[in-house]
Amino acid sequence: MNNRKEYKAIGKSVDRVDAFDKATGQARYGADYSLNGQLFGHVKYTDHPHAEIITIHTEKARSLSGVRAVLTHDDIPGKKSFGSVVPHQMVLCSDKVRYTGDVVAIVAAETLEIAEKACELITIDYKTLPIVDDPKTALTVDSPLVYPDGNLCRRHKVRKGDISEGFSQSDEIIERIYTTSKIEHAYIEPEAVLAEPGENGGITIIGSVQNLYTIRRAVAGVLGLPLNKVRIKQATLGGSFGGKDEAMGALCCRAAILALFSGKPVKMVNSRENSMRESYKRHPYRMEYKIGAKVNGKLQAIEVKMYADAGAYAAMSPFVTWRSVVHATGPYVVTNVQTDVYAAYTNNCYTGAMRGFGSPQVCFAIESLMDELAEKLGLDPLEFRMINILKDGSTTATGQILNHKVGLEQAIQNVTNKAGFKNKWQANRAIKSSGSIKSGIGIACSYRGISLGAEGTDAAGVVISIQTDGSVIVSTGLVDMGQGAGTTISLIVAEELGISIDKIRFLNADTSLVPDSGPTVASRTTFMAGNAARKGCSKLLERLNPIAANILNCSEPSLVFKDNHIINEKSDNKLAFADLTEACFRQGVSLITHGWYKSPVTSWDEETGQGDAYFTYVYGANLAEVEVDTKTGRVKVRNFVSSHDLGRVINRGGAKGQIYGGVAMGLGYALFESYTEEEGLPRLENFDEYLLPTSCDIPPVDIVFVENPDALGPYGAKSLGEPACEIAAPAIANAIANATGMRVRKLPLTLERVLLGKNLHRNDVRGSAKAQGENK
Amino acid sequence: MNNRKEYKAIGKSVDRVDAFDKATGQARYGADYSLNGQLFGHVKYTDHPHAEIITIHTEKARSLSGVRAVLTHDDIPGKKSFGSVVPHQMVLCSDKVRYTGDVVAIVAAETLEIAEKACELITIDYKTLPIVDDPKTALTVDSPLVYPDGNLCRRHKVRKGDISEGFSQSDEIIERIYTTSKIEHAYIEPEAVLAEPGENGGITIIGSVQNLYTIRRAVAGVLGLPLNKVRIKQATLGGSFGGKDEAMGALCCRAAILALFSGKPVKMVNSRENSMRESYKRHPYRMEYKIGAKVNGKLQAIEVKMYADAGAYAAMSPFVTWRSVVHATGPYVVTNVQTDVYAAYTNNCYTGAMRGFGSPQVCFAIESLMDELAEKLGLDPLEFRMINILKDGSTTATGQILNHKVGLEQAIQNVTNKAGFKNKWQANRAIKSSGSIKSGIGIACSYRGISLGAEGTDAAGVVISIQTDGSVIVSTGLVDMGQGAGTTISLIVAEELGISIDKIRFLNADTSLVPDSGPTVASRTTFMAGNAARKGCSKLLERLNPIAANILNCSEPSLVFKDNHIINEKSDNKLAFADLTEACFRQGVSLITHGWYKSPVTSWDEETGQGDAYFTYVYGANLAEVEVDTKTGRVKVRNFVSSHDLGRVINRGGAKGQIYGGVAMGLGYALFESYTEEEGLPRLENFDEYLLPTSCDIPPVDIVFVENPDALGPYGAKSLGEPACEIAAPAIANAIANATGMRVRKLPLTLERVLLGKNLHRNDVRGSAKAQGENK
Repeated sequence: MNNRKEYKAIGKSVDRVDAFDKATGQARYGADYSLNGQLFGHVKYTDHPHAEIITIHTEKARSLSGVRAVLTHDDIPGKKSFGSVVPHQMVLCSDKVRYTGDVVAIVAAETLEIAEKACELITIDYKTLPIVDDPKTALTVDSPLVYPDGNLCRRHKVRKGDISEGFSQSDEIIERIYTTSKIEHAYIEPEAVLAEPGENGGITIIGSVQNLYTIRRAVAGVLGLPLNKVRIKQATLGGSFGGKDEAMGALCCRAAILALFSGKPVKMVNSRENSMRESYKRHPYRMEYKIGAKVNGKLQAIEVKMYADAGAYAAMSPFVTWRSVVHATGPYVVTNVQTDVYAAYTNNCYTGAMRGFGSPQVCFAIESLMDELAEKLGLDPLEFRMINILKDGSTTATGQILNHKVGLEQAIQNVTNKAGFKNKWQANRAIKSSGSIKSGIGIACSYRGISLGAEGTDAAGVVISIQTDGSVIVSTGLVDMGQGAGTTISLIVAEELGISIDKIRFLNADTSLVPDSGPTVASRTTFMAGNAARKGCSKLLERLNPIAANILNCSEPSLVFKDNHIINEKSDNKLAFADLTEACFRQGVSLITHGWYKSPVTSWDEETGQGDAYFTYVYGANLAEVEVDTKTGRVKVRNFVSSHDLGRVINRGGAKGQIYGGVAMGLGYALFESYTEEEGLPRLENFDEYLLPTSCDIPPVDIVFVENPDALGPYGAKSLGEPACEIAAPAIANAIANATGMRVRKLPLTLERVLLGKNLHRNDVRGSAKAQGENK
Repeated sequence: MNNRKEYKAIGKSVDRVDAFDKATGQARYGADYSLNGQLFGHVKYTDHPHAEIITIHTEKARSLSGVRAVLTHDDIPGKKSFGSVVPHQMVLCSDKVRYTGDVVAIVAAETLEIAEKACELITIDYKTLPIVDDPKTALTVDSPLVYPDGNLCRRHKVRKGDISEGFSQSDEIIERIYTTSKIEHAYIEPEAVLAEPGENGGITIIGSVQNLYTIRRAVAGVLGLPLNKVRIKQATLGGSFGGKDEAMGALCCRAAILALFSGKPVKMVNSRENSMRESYKRHPYRMEYKIGAKVNGKLQAIEVKMYADAGAYAAMSPFVTWRSVVHATGPYVVTNVQTDVYAAYTNNCYTGAMRGFGSPQVCFAIESLMDELAEKLGLDPLEFRMINILKDGSTTATGQILNHKVGLEQAIQNVTNKAGFKNKWQANRAIKSSGSIKSGIGIACSYRGISLGAEGTDAAGVVISIQTDGSVIVSTGLVDMGQGAGTTISLIVAEELGISIDKIRFLNADTSLVPDSGPTVASRTTFMAGNAARKGCSKLLERLNPIAANILNCSEPSLVFKDNHIINEKSDNKLAFADLTEACFRQGVSLITHGWYKSPVTSWDEETGQGDAYFTYVYGANLAEVEVDTKTGRVKVRNFVSSHDLGRVINRGGAKGQIYGGVAMGLGYALFESYTEEEGLPRLENFDEYLLPTSCDIPPVDIVFVENPDALGPYGAKSLGEPACEIAAPAIANAIANATGMRVRKLPLTLERVLLGKNLHRNDVRGSAKAQGENK
């Protein structure tokens, strides 16, 4: 592998490999795929969020002209449900419905209009059931039951030290309750799929699929087929953010059954309304924190109880909440920790993976809390954090010793120095201007375990195929879902082979093409697939080197691959890369290979919540400067600084893009977004009412990268995608508190809430956590 | 690798993996692919077989409603021609046309009817040129020129010993001229392709493509794209027999250009008429033989001059004629050999690869000649052959020492013993019945170099991907074009992994999926891809073994993979294969790999025609029993025996299928098939006039396999596909001569020719070869 210090490609800013196609409209998204003779699928949703199904009447739908298939639960040939963790997500409901996005019947027809009409003609007799719509209530004994065995989806805990002792040693203790909202992924492209019955009784599906192998498992199970008879191909994704997993599972299973029954390709594209109604969201959390510190600012103990609303199905709740339990106490050294997280089933829309994956919630809580406790201790937020932050060799809440370079302090210094935090923070507090516009500045920081950690098997592969003309095809088991993986991996291959990135073609993934590399989640792609790509290139270089040495009549160690050539450094003789690959072909040397990388070992004790939860961590700090109109509650974010220790920048432009996008997403989470439900029914169904930030809302974002190369990451790279979005909200919340002197503990920080925030400078809130914590 | 003596899968007769889909109509051939919004492509053929193009008038075609593109030579973005050996095959002609299948313009329109109409509206001004339609004439100085540099396409020679001395030592010398006909591949599915403009300015093509990588090279060149931007996918092929190579190249290039220009998918499907007109055929040969032997039957010298009609383009002529030059003297030990073969350009339809690839022609000649010389020597054909055949350790005409077990004698004995050759042969000659129906029996034998030999790079790869549920996906660079490669390779993988064949899914090839393995030709698939599959399985077993040993708590050597289980032979503990693969997945062990096999070294001296032309050889003998109606010339083949030393049978049913098909094809070659042209114009355009054998013409075929395992072949397997069809014609010709006492030296052995055959028992034809040889 290329370990030289000076990189040709790595760290440069390059155009995304998919930019041209996306900009010119040539990229093909799920809904762009059509086949001659295809039918259109549509779903019949339940009429009630919680009910028993008595009878399904499909006769009228079946007799409608142009209808080719009307299917219900009984028609499913294989397993009736799916799910990576808990396989209970209903493809078509039979005995009962659990949320308003549940589907009872599906139709394939010659046109979408006919399919929709047919769905209207399906009627269902129900016995309605009482609704449970709050996760904490759901765990009480007299709650309505979503599942007969109870509403507890998963519990995780962390037990470290002795919190009683910790609190008894504390000079200041505060208790607070924070709540976060349920939010939409809001990908611009709704879910879309085209299922085609294939040879061998199998099926081929192309669509907006984030996790090909997860979906394949679901479809194969539901169709009762072996895995090798189900082929899933990824269309270009118009955003996913973790969202096109189970939601696509349901859609793919339904389209596949319709295709097999009708013998025709079946296309199903969710409208925005259906996508909003049915697809899973980010978990809303209720987080009850108790924290104690000495007057010198040293944290002594943290106790956390969290309730996550899983909604009607488990989906990724067991893993999302596990990430929360690991990160709940933030990037701080705390000797005594007791954390409990509960995911509970309700009749709300189910929740699952979304960029951040259980961290944005706890980041909002702990980072708000740190400011609140600092206030109590009479320390400024920066001072207080610096006393407690994780450093080289620190031990985390789960007992893991950080044996790598910890870039947190540097990141915090970067953002605070850039913006002149200390002075501004003090000045904002002191100013008693008469105008309604107040300025505020706030910071937040985090650490984050990269990749899956002890959640699951962690390995990934890439396929690299050098063509005879020296052009290269790369495909990876971890996909490009818009995050830029194609460009990152292409850059790595370009670096390793010494060729320019335009020689590389990155293919959308396909289960027949790429190895099962687990899901594309957890900001693991650069690290895992990047390492796999390097290993693949190593194997290829082992084949290329002797041929090149032979042609250039020199020894292998004197060869350098660069600028699309292979150069004998001792003589400056050189050989075009394309001539070398042509020579390899003539000599019968294969230039196609798989690179495979398996992550280092992690550990987890479910009983104590102790272990090396992740093999390494990244660190970041965000700083927000806001103006708050104290008459209207309107918050304008004026400036933003983001610094992340990501190990190593691969594509500088891409890394910045991750931060721009992450900050925008975090800002929406902070100020606007909320998917609200009442009695299991959504109160909105489209972006007219679901408020997303627009470009007018986004401040300039100043970015400072910290590069502490990781010993194992490709060129030292770790991860960035999710860290980039997890601490914008608390930074903004802290800035608002700095501006107004008022604390809002509930996301989003709407106008009303900002106006009604609690005044923190004056009241001692100790002991009145319940009343104070849940401000509306 | 599994080297046990008892095979679970190998050598058994299994259903073809594609049988169900083909039998139930679910297999998807080239023309079965359609895309929404696709256009239909059509071609404007030249009006003359040889002419200069003065002007092309496309205005009327362009103005026709529904026409989306009308393109001529100038519109080709990249190279104007293609060709694996000589890159001069015109995609669209500009300056001149060379045969009646040349295309001057192409059209894409909304319907096929509009495209056809538009082609009719294109008019071309020509200056016609004189025609050359005979390869020997084409090489004379005053011949019209197809190419300015002359009409010689390629010459090969073999020089061994001293033929003057050989002939001077001979007691009997005869000279004969044999000619073979130009025949159609007659695949049931005409060429079909669908080209779709893709992302990245690239193109994806699916169609009835035999050699994906050859076609990709052609298309990329013509489009001016790097190879990685052209993706070729193989549809299920409805027969190819070597025929869907250059013919598909032309079609793919044209569809691709139309697709890129129109920005729409373009479908092009040849009608039978267009396929017959344009696609290449088997080379017709004129073969002038002189042969000498001692009275004891020992061959002394052979001199051969052959003229092959290459038609308008080189295509595979350089390689086809090379195979002819190597095999021209048959499977006999001859000390003195002088062979010259010339491929010449004419204005006939071009010729190229077809099952047999230059051997059926020389087999017809040498095997007829052996019977003729035996007659002269007063020996029976069997006796005479036995004196001269290649045996273990023999030296071939190219000076290669056969260092393997040579199964020729065994094969000859098999067929002659089965049918009681000797007695019947004698009896048929003796009978002077008064009826017009005469019986005859004849034999022919051959040796054949397997795979590409010194023709080119010889390596191949497969991809094997074991899924978590233990099901397996296999794809190979050498494709299944109907010959059963999918079943053969699946059987090998089943054998190696100890699983049943129904666990394996064999995918059609795709350039993004499979490594460039050279063309699927030369009966090389079982040997090359079979070895690659075994190597791939070995790599997988290296990963599977330690995990299995760990689970079964035993040492790796005591593990046996069989019956979908892994068994600890020492304890009989066992583990389901699917449980092992699931365990591997959980442990992050990749179960996807490439197997790659490179052939042993071959050698060739172009000047002397000496060398180890192929790394090994197969041997075969055919026997035909016929009835000839001497009043009508009608020949009925009553019985057929075929014996081939193929090294090792992999799929017994498939191997038999190859022989049944090969005999049927050879029988058509012998008795019926002829694609005749006059002045460059075909005299027929469909199967109404092109006579193919029907099931009524096919005799029972008795098959005896000789299995002399090859040291390097997979389980000892060598090859069979082409050997199976190369000696039916001479066996039948010899049987006819045995029945009638008349020799026909020109294929096909039509009624008229059989009636007018030369009486061999009575006339000494020495010195009158010219007159006698070319009987009509």
